[in-house]
Amino acid sequence: MNTDIPNRLRALRECMKEQNISACIIPSEDCHMSEYVNDCFKYRQYYSGFTGSAGTLYITSDKGYLITDGRYFLQAEAQLEGTGIKLVRDGVKGEPDIFALCKSTLGRGDRLFSDGRFMSASFADKLSSLAETQSFDILTENSPVIKACNDLPLQKFSMISELPIELTGASRESKLSNIRAKMSALSADGHVISSLEEIAWILNLRGSDIKNTPVFYAYMYITATNAYVFLDSKASSNITASLDSSKITVLDYSTFYTFIKDITEKKILCDTTAVNAAIISAVKQANAEIIERCDPAVLFKAVKNAVEIENLKRIHLYDGLAVTRFMHLIKNAKDGEYTEISAADKLRQIRGSCPSYNGDSFDTICGYGANAAIVHYSATPDSDTAIMRSGALLVDSGGQYKGGTTDITRVFVLGDTSYEFKLHYTLVCKAMLRLQKAVFQKGTRCAVLDAIARQPLWEHGLDFRHGTGHGIGYMLSVHEGPNRFHYANNAPAIEAGMVTSDEPGLYIEGSHGIRIENEILCVNAFSNDHGDFLKFEPLTVCPIDLDAVLPEYLDESDIKALNDYHAFVFENLFPLLEPDEHEWFSSYVRRL
Amino acid sequence: MNTDIPNRLRALRECMKEQNISACIIPSEDCHMSEYVNDCFKYRQYYSGFTGSAGTLYITSDKGYLITDGRYFLQAEAQLEGTGIKLVRDGVKGEPDIFALCKSTLGRGDRLFSDGRFMSASFADKLSSLAETQSFDILTENSPVIKACNDLPLQKFSMISELPIELTGASRESKLSNIRAKMSALSADGHVISSLEEIAWILNLRGSDIKNTPVFYAYMYITATNAYVFLDSKASSNITASLDSSKITVLDYSTFYTFIKDITEKKILCDTTAVNAAIISAVKQANAEIIERCDPAVLFKAVKNAVEIENLKRIHLYDGLAVTRFMHLIKNAKDGEYTEISAADKLRQIRGSCPSYNGDSFDTICGYGANAAIVHYSATPDSDTAIMRSGALLVDSGGQYKGGTTDITRVFVLGDTSYEFKLHYTLVCKAMLRLQKAVFQKGTRCAVLDAIARQPLWEHGLDFRHGTGHGIGYMLSVHEGPNRFHYANNAPAIEAGMVTSDEPGLYIEGSHGIRIENEILCVNAFSNDHGDFLKFEPLTVCPIDLDAVLPEYLDESDIKALNDYHAFVFENLFPLLEPDEHEWFSSYVRRL
Repeated sequence: MNTDIPNRLRALRECMKEQNISACIIPSEDCHMSEYVNDCFKYRQYYSGFTGSAGTLYITSDKGYLITDGRYFLQAEAQLEGTGIKLVRDGVKGEPDIFALCKSTLGRGDRLFSDGRFMSASFADKLSSLAETQSFDILTENSPVIKACNDLPLQKFSMISELPIELTGASRESKLSNIRAKMSALSADGHVISSLEEIAWILNLRGSDIKNTPVFYAYMYITATNAYVFLDSKASSNITASLDSSKITVLDYSTFYTFIKDITEKKILCDTTAVNAAIISAVKQANAEIIERCDPAVLFKAVKNAVEIENLKRIHLYDGLAVTRFMHLIKNAKDGEYTEISAADKLRQIRGSCPSYNGDSFDTICGYGANAAIVHYSATPDSDTAIMRSGALLVDSGGQYKGGTTDITRVFVLGDTSYEFKLHYTLVCKAMLRLQKAVFQKGTRCAVLDAIARQPLWEHGLDFRHGTGHGIGYMLSVHEGPNRFHYANNAPAIEAGMVTSDEPGLYIEGSHGIRIENEILCVNAFSNDHGDFLKFEPLTVCPIDLDAVLPEYLDESDIKALNDYHAFVFENLFPLLEPDEHEWFSSYVRRL
Repeated sequence: MNTDIPNRLRALRECMKEQNISACIIPSEDCHMSEYVNDCFKYRQYYSGFTGSAGTLYITSDKGYLITDGRYFLQAEAQLEGTGIKLVRDGVKGEPDIFALCKSTLGRGDRLFSDGRFMSASFADKLSSLAETQSFDILTENSPVIKACNDLPLQKFSMISELPIELTGASRESKLSNIRAKMSALSADGHVISSLEEIAWILNLRGSDIKNTPVFYAYMYITATNAYVFLDSKASSNITASLDSSKITVLDYSTFYTFIKDITEKKILCDTTAVNAAIISAVKQANAEIIERCDPAVLFKAVKNAVEIENLKRIHLYDGLAVTRFMHLIKNAKDGEYTEISAADKLRQIRGSCPSYNGDSFDTICGYGANAAIVHYSATPDSDTAIMRSGALLVDSGGQYKGGTTDITRVFVLGDTSYEFKLHYTLVCKAMLRLQKAVFQKGTRCAVLDAIARQPLWEHGLDFRHGTGHGIGYMLSVHEGPNRFHYANNAPAIEAGMVTSDEPGLYIEGSHGIRIENEILCVNAFSNDHGDFLKFEPLTVCPIDLDAVLPEYLDESDIKALNDYHAFVFENLFPLLEPDEHEWFSSYVRRL
């Protein structure tokens, strides 16, 4: 536990009392609804000590709750210990969501604070409905959360740089033209975008305002004839001329909300799950009608073009090579030669030998033994565990490269493992391969693809509490939509050109955790009288440790898929390896 | 082709000209958005000759289009021949939908007729948006479609009867109370229901206004304290007292729209996909706000209670016994002893020997040889084909029983079949079994279950153009939602207690058609640390013809599933069969 938390909560509750506020919602997002945020927005972490990437804190005058999902249950439990904040397990039967918490703690006349800039418009809508039926009030400005906090840095803006067409494959003019066609089809004459990944993608620009995700703080507003981007003037001084030549007007970041209140367009396309409530409120002040739809840039961005795919295939060779060399190193390390933190450092160093490497795409998850059961484990100096020649090590890592973003998980077998571990490892491997080799009709919804992976686990009464896959950005966020694989999720159909992770897992608390993750590219398979079929191609090029595979739990077709994958790895990596690496490498990709 | 069609279209176009109407939309639904309708509403069939259960006719001054789905392509093609009406294949790449047809044929100042009572409110909404952007007008009253038609019968009302609690398992009071709880959760003070199945289910009443589906024409309006049902006074005279004692006010069917215009409630729950546009228009005239949500009765009705499940299991024994005896008869019939029509008659006669049988649940599809490739084939005296001792016969049939509604498809092998037929038969069988034996997490979306069945077909580049399954009513419609299995469909999660069909198929035009259909009941499988798992139990009790199965295309687990199913069939039917039937029956359910 962070020992400052009680004092911080005390200060917050004093501010709440002064403003006669009964409860505060403190989400983890910034004004752009980013999953990962700059330190200056880490209010939720400041008041709770919980460092995960997803979770909402709810503070009343005498109680505190943190709602987070299955990836973070174990971590949150540890980090909340002693704070008096209760962990609420999202998605677990009988656990309340934020609305149920509000309902059970707020009544007539109560005042709830929820910052309009830090909640999505769709969330704000639901909250308003609840407030109406429960007769409590919602305050969205004059934040006690900000007032009581004296420790977070100020918002700073990093330099923005431009990507050449050799990396993007499409000009910002062509991207704007596709977006405008979609706006026109939806009868929208204006379109507000606040998602940093979408803005970076449209403009072919990158920054470093958020750790591991090369975006920059900005807003955009697009009409049929004009486009405006709101940037910090210092950070954008070097690219203003370029944007100007693309007929994009650069305005100051701080003027965005005032600008929106004065727009003259009448039908404004807004993705209410992606823009904050303060933006919607500004659009309404301009007397414009909101057209609630998914931001078309999300789908355009997710379908990678030929240049992006070519670059991705290239940088995945570097990335796979780095993890393969790490695999050799860690499987042959002495007892205690590495700890979780030093092993992660070593992997970063190996990746760093590639000139295209620009740092990691997220904080490496390196969990030894039972620590691997913590889905989004992040070793701290306190928890850092020495890696021994027994059991297994889970490493989930990724890089940002000139040419793409990667995400890969492997479990390395370091010595003796239990029969249960081997069974679980084999089933997870089978699950990963089942999805990677799937053939399916065009139009197949993402939920379906999740279940194709899960079936071998479900048959054994096993499961894992996260999606089987998420979209991956191109030199952008390691998590992007709309392609998300989860059996209960309402994501749309997968499309050729989308890159998704294929990462089933199994986690046994206190014992072991397994996750095997390839990135897979959706491609056309064949077309015939029965339809247009799609399939996947692996992008990740790295051996799957065979040392815990029980072949008797694999069908013939699974074994073929595993051998085929290793043949693909061999063919691609062998030419890049040094002669003295050939022997061990060949043994890692041996036929089963 | 029906030779009256040209004259009928001429009369319609004359009426259209008189009213200065450029085009008419003629859907297949009645005012209650029923899939199957009384003859008095069959305008689409009257003007096109197409007899399928789904399809929309679009008539302009000089062109005609019929849009229907993959189940009906072959049938529609045959029935439209010579009418000048063009078949539009719904769901096929590049084919327009009704909105695209309107867009391409209507412009500024044109007048489109689409009857407000025969289109759903959500359809009307989309049409209005299109009319706005294309600047054409929509007329919804003074139908030229009705005016030009002089041949359809008047709407008649059959007697309504009441079901005892032994058949329903739940009183109408308890059903109303559940619906009101849902209304309250949605802050609705009124709820309009026009779906005949929902009304029959809520009221525990049945009628015979629609062939094969025991419903009666009615509307309902529910408030927090009152319930009103709008019925024909003659048809309901016998049940008025009973409804009265349940505090349900009976009003005349013809007064419904006037009544709605005068309601004083302010927030009206309406399922805009299930109520017609004229109803929404009446609600708006009452100055009430529409709360657009799925009718809660749909979900309540789909989850069968313990009494319904017990009755279903019982009547499925009768139904399976009938089809099993038919199987023996047809597999041993002489060349030409039966035709498609006489075979269907024979099956109806066998079902009729069960005292609980109340007629068929839909018109039997009995297709021999290449006719089986027509998914919803309906033999006519012209097409009626003699059944010989070669090839195979597809029979898709079902019964209405005191205790439930059934739906079953089997393909009977009658003699030599090609290797391709056997391969396809085996893959369809495998697909059916894969779904029937699936184990999956609670919360799994219906789309997922569809794909579990399709995977063995997709792997061979094969597919079929209909869902893998649909919900089945209880003494109601053979097609009900919300459980519908299709990989591209956005249906919600399956729930324990839902009954769905499991009916993959393969159709090769001009050659053969295969479909194997069991009804399956979703039940709890087990719960553990990994979640609450669900599975299916078969309700259908009838052998699957083994004579075309190629075991080399089945995995060990598929063979086990087939043997397990046949053991279940044996155990249930053996005691009901006569001693002289035991020998052939045992051979039909032999272990593979």
